[in-house]
Amino acid sequence: MLANTPDPPYWAVIFTSCRTETADGYGETASRMVELASRQPGFLGVDSARDGIGITVSYWESEEAIQAWHANAEHRLAQRDGYAKWYSAFELRVAKVERAYGFRTANPAQPTETDPTDR
Amino acid sequence: MLANTPDPPYWAVIFTSCRTETADGYGETASRMVELASRQPGFLGVDSARDGIGITVSYWESEEAIQAWHANAEHRLAQRDGYAKWYSAFELRVAKVERAYGFRTANPAQPTETDPTDR
Repeated sequence: MLANTPDPPYWAVIFTSCRTETADGYGETASRMVELASRQPGFLGVDSARDGIGITVSYWESEEAIQAWHANAEHRLAQRDGYAKWYSAFELRVAKVERAYGFRTANPAQPTETDPTDR
Repeated sequence: MLANTPDPPYWAVIFTSCRTETADGYGETASRMVELASRQPGFLGVDSARDGIGITVSYWESEEAIQAWHANAEHRLAQRDGYAKWYSAFELRVAKVERAYGFRTANPAQPTETDPTDR
């Protein structure tokens, strides 16, 4: 359910947004962009949730992989519609993930990478 | 509605989670943690959404500010309950924000920092 990413370092694109009331094509395009992104070289995973605001975090092997995805022709058309129709506001942040840890109750029951108590 | 952050560099803590069915105290503690975090030195803002999974991204001036928040005594108690009761899985990623841009239809109508077309 949550994205499975390798050990850091890797990159994250944090996209937060407020939607307009224009639904026109949004859902289809959003699904299509996740599908397209997941086929890009260097794509590692994505997490997404919307309630009030939307947050989508995609994970990438390198900055170059992010730039290639940004420049993808079909993605660029979707970005244009995002500005013109779907978003009243957004922020996009490109960040280098330096440390990570997690836990899953199923397997394993303990933190997966490093002990969070020493953070 | 979206967090307003200064120009990069700054830090982001990306917390993604799946909830258990245990509500017991979760909502109150979650609100309290946002309130406490926002009073920590170096706190810059937070964005949060939950649908299926939860994503909370908090923004910080420095790694030291993140470490101080992680070590906050009341926060540590909440972390313990998170492991024990509220989350079936989570991932926490600490990332350095290197670049950012955004737009708001109200003011201004164009990208705020740099031209996204050259990314």
